Formats: sequence, C-alpha cells, structure tokens
Amino acid sequence: MEHLGLLLPVVDLTSAVVFAVTGALVASRKSLDIVGFMWLAVVTGVGGGSVRDMLLDLPVFWIETPSIVIACLVAATVVHFTWHLVESRYRLILWLDAAGMALVTIAGTAKGLDAGVGAVVAVAMGVITASVGGILRDVLGQEASVIMRREIYVTAALCGAVAYVLTLALSSDRYVAAVIGAATAFMLRVLALTLGWSLPVYRPRESSTRANGGSDR
Amino acid sequence: MEHLGLLLPVVDLTSAVVFAVTGALVASRKSLDIVGFMWLAVVTGVGGGSVRDMLLDLPVFWIETPSIVIACLVAATVVHFTWHLVESRYRLILWLDAAGMALVTIAGTAKGLDAGVGAVVAVAMGVITASVGGILRDVLGQEASVIMRREIYVTAALCGAVAYVLTLALSSDRYVAAVIGAATAFMLRVLALTLGWSLPVYRPRESSTRANGGSDR
Amino acid sequence: MEHLGLLLPVVDLTSAVVFAVTGALVASRKSLDIVGFMWLAVVTGVGGGSVRDMLLDLPVFWIETPSIVIACLVAATVVHFTWHLVESRYRLILWLDAAGMALVTIAGTAKGLDAGVGAVVAVAMGVITASVGGILRDVLGQEASVIMRREIYVTAALCGAVAYVLTLALSSDRYVAAVIGAATAFMLRVLALTLGWSLPVYRPRESSTRANGGSDR
Repeated sequence: MEHLGLLLPVVDLTSAVVFAVTGALVASRKSLDIVGFMWLAVVTGVGGGSVRDMLLDLPVFWIETPSIVIACLVAATVVHFTWHLVESRYRLILWLDAAGMALVTIAGTAKGLDAGVGAVVAVAMGVITASVGGILRDVLGQEASVIMRREIYVTAALCGAVAYVLTLALSSDRYVAAVIGAATAFMLRVLALTLGWSLPVYRPRESSTRANGGSDR
Repeated sequence: MEHLGLLLPVVDLTSAVVFAVTGALVASRKSLDIVGFMWLAVVTGVGGGSVRDMLLDLPVFWIETPSIVIACLVAATVVHFTWHLVESRYRLILWLDAAGMALVTIAGTAKGLDAGVGAVVAVAMGVITASVGGILRDVLGQEASVIMRREIYVTAALCGAVAYVLTLALSSDRYVAAVIGAATAFMLRVLALTLGWSLPVYRPRESSTRANGGSDR
Repeated sequence: MEHLGLLLPVVDLTSAVVFAVTGALVASRKSLDIVGFMWLAVVTGVGGGSVRDMLLDLPVFWIETPSIVIACLVAATVVHFTWHLVESRYRLILWLDAAGMALVTIAGTAKGLDAGVGAVVAVAMGVITASVGGILRDVLGQEASVIMRREIYVTAALCGAVAYVLTLALSSDRYVAAVIGAATAFMLRVLALTLGWSLPVYRPRESSTRANGGSDR
C-alpha cells in the first residue's frame, strides 16, 4: 500500500531545502535580517506539506522529522552569508524550484493516496504541497503571489499530479508513475520558463467592463 | 444529537459553489488564467469549512466529499468561459453570496454544536465558516478583505449564528432555528446592501492622533 | 511530565488579551467598526496558539476554554469605546506586547515539550505561538508584518525559547527555566525597543544587483 515509502523522506528533505532557498531569496530581496531569512525559509520549506498533513489529519511531517527544519535553517543561514558569491542567482533558483515543485507534487499526491483518499483529493494534495509554501512566502514577503502571476506553475503541478495518478491507474508501478509524473511537472515548468509560456487570461468583454472593475464590489 | 444532519451536505455543496463563484469573480477582475480561477474558486469555496474542521479536529468536509471540490472546479470553468454573457454580474453575485453566507453560517454553527462545543465556540465556528473563505480569497487576490471594508458581512453572520443558537435554546426545533438564523443573516446582509448600512467606525479623538497613525508602530 | 501545567491557563488567558489589544489597536488605526475590532482581536489573541495546537494535533486551546475568546471580545469592545482616553498608547502597547510575547513563547515551548516533541520543534512551537497571531493581524490589517520590519521580535522569542529549553536541560526545574526564558525574551525585546536595536540586514553585493532586484523573478 505504501506509495513511494522509501523515497518520501529524501524528497521531503530535498524539496524543503530547495523551497527554503527560494524563501531566503525573497528575504534577501527585501533586505531582511537573518531571523527574517530563517522564518521565510522555514515557512516556504515546510508550509505546503504542513497544510497537506493538517488537512489529511496526519502527523505533520517536520514534527516527526525535525532535521527538515534544521536543514531549512541551515539553508537560510548559508544563503544569508554566501548568496552574494553566487552568480546568476535568478536562473539557478528557478530551475531548482522547478525540480523541488515536481518532487513534492508527486510526494504530496502519493501521501494523499497512502492516506486513503480518492484521486481528486490526492491531486489536490499534490498541488497544495507544491504551491502553498510559495504562496505563504509571497503573502508574508508582500510579493505578487504565484497565483496572481501569469506563469505555468500551479498548472505544472496539477498536470504532474494528474499524470502520476493516471499512470498509476494504468501500470500500478509506482516508481514508473512517479518518474512520469515528476517529469511532466518539471518539463512543463521548465518549458514555460524557457519559452515564456502562459495560459490565456480572462478578458472582460468590453473595455467599459474593465474600467468599472475597480469599483465592482 | 445531529443538528441539521440531512441538510448539511446540500448546504455544504450549494454554498461552496456560490463562494467559488465569488472567488472566480475576483479571478476575472484580476485577469487570471483558468488555473488561477480554479485556485481562487476552490480556496473561497472550501476555505472557511476547512479551517472550521481543522479547528474542531473533525475530518475536513471536502476530503470526505470530493464532489464539492469538483463542483467548485466546474463553477470556476463555467465562470471563466461564460461570465461575459451574464449581465449585471455585480448585483447577482452579491445576492448569491448573501444566501451562501447565511447558509454556511448556520451549517457551521450546527457542525460546532454537533461536535459538542458550547454556544460561544459554535457561534465562532459559524462566523469562521462564513468569512474565512472570503478572507483567503481577498488576501490571495490582493483585495481589501471583508474585514477592512465597512460593510455588514461578518456582523450579519454573527447575528445569524447567535439567532440560531438562541432559538435552539428556546424551541429545540432545529429546523425552525435554522430558518430563523439563516433568515436573520440573509436579511441583515441584504438590507445592508440595499440601504448601504454600516456600523459606526472607530474615530481617533483628535486629528493629530490620526496624523501620527502611520508611524505609530 | 507536565511542564508549567498550572500556569498555562493563566498565561494563555493573559497573553491572549494582550495580543487582542494589539489587534484592536490595528483595527483602530484602520478605523474599523466594532466587529472588525473583534475579528482582529480574536485572530491576534488566539491565532498563534491555534496554529501551534493544530500542528501538534492537540485540541485547540480556546475551543477547550471558550472564556479566552470571550476575554478577547471584551478587550476589543473596551478598546473600541475607551481607547481615546488612554494617553501615550504607543509605548504602553509595546510593553504589554513584549510581556505577552515572552509569556506565550515559554507557554508554547512548554506545550510542545509536553506533547513529546524534541527541543527543535518545541522551540519552533514557542516562536509560532509568539508570532503567528501578530503575523495574521498584520496580513489581515494590511500592515507590514513583523517579519518584514527590522525589529528584534521573532529573535527575542527565539532566544527566550532556546534559553528555556537549555535551562531545563541543565536544571530540570521548570519554573526556574520558565522565568529565565521569559526574562530573556522580554528583556531582549525591551532593550531592542529602548535602544533601537536591530540585526544587520542582508545587503546585495553591489548596487547593480539591487537595481535589478525588482525584476528578479
């Protein structure tokens, strides 16, 4: 019954650290002190998984495995003191973040399936694990959140989770399904980054509607 | 012991869809893509009930009943593709939202009572169910939240929940109490919308106090 | 095994009221109505402890003890109607807040230890209890949150929690540890307030990096 049982701790740790680095990046952009780095790193690193575990009424993963929190704190400290040495931080962080997103999407979906929920809720858990940490980071860091920006991010997580669940239904080999799901999420995100892809946005019917938008409610 | 047991699933579904539509409205105002519509619709639709269930340590309602999430996703999709056909969206959505708010206030209060909490906490659960989804929607959509706007919204939910608990204490007929509670919340909200009611706001004693407000902390 | 068992309810109530007053202060600054005061007071008063309890999968403290919510509502009402009588509100509130922060840091850390978690997670629980209520207050009130401001606040809570855990490891007298921990947090915060202390902030290596910061991601 255990989906990806052995890989989950490794994925949890790796992706928490990657997400923590993106949190520390926002902290560096806002010129915060080291405790601000730590706070944003930990919230980004473990926020998505915490909400997932509380929704599923499972023990929260970092309370069971405090080394994940310590790893986030170390990541925050390292970024605080050495980040200025790293060139071209922007590209690097986006690629790492894409990899982390792909991994936790599958890990979150698998954890949902392990908890006995159906496919729809499991996919929701994958998307929540992948995006809630970043959303909390952006709300706390007062940046436009990943939902508001026109990028393929949540979409990539959603497609990866769906690909994982579908492959699992067809093949029942969970490692194959995990590789296909994670590759789907990662490649969609990387292609979107590289090619500047985005989904079509909602457009009001006429300009007058938009002009009235601000006072709509 | 079951308060409104049979009606709860219907109310949960109906009000989640209504709230989801208000989430999709914010997404349309922000010109998001369809995944942004879906995300805001689901968060607004199930956010309040999720927080209520986690606080009460009950199974989260949409994990037990995934069709609610699917209904929110369908609502988001329909709004994304057909909203421009609907005239006078502003009024419609406010009336629907008032009805949804009235329903979930009572459903949330009843769920609290079913869980064995006292009247004060049950009223708090009603208010949380009615308002947290909208608050999350406004924070994620970067709009002034319902708390900051000077409208009778949380107040209407509060009065409806109190009316429900009081009527229940007097009559013990929970359907009568539910009708009275929901009618109180709905009518207060609709009257406030129609007549432009609002509560008096806090005013600083002298203008110098206000002038200093920005640097106060 | 019970850490500070007898003192916890008193600390929970006292600090919830103090935090509630800081929530009501933000409501007064935003000229909200009395329900807005109540909402911000309750969220600030019980938000940190609620998140702590949900993360630890413990019963949420104010659901067990509704008088804490009532106390927050009373505090909101009193502030709404009498605040203009109080002179020099700024200083008073900062000192009260420092005391509340110090108390709940220790109470939150102790509750974590009681729940059987290790030192790192217990310290995290102390910091979460001390800061999440204020963070929710600032996000909902649309103010720069305590994380973004350059003050010793989370740092003081962190040091207090660490001092408590360390003293406990050395002396095993939990009252001595609580006094030392709370004093550490309180004095650090008060000294920071009095002397204008802050931690060094992250500085980009060269001005060109900063100039590009806004378009970084």
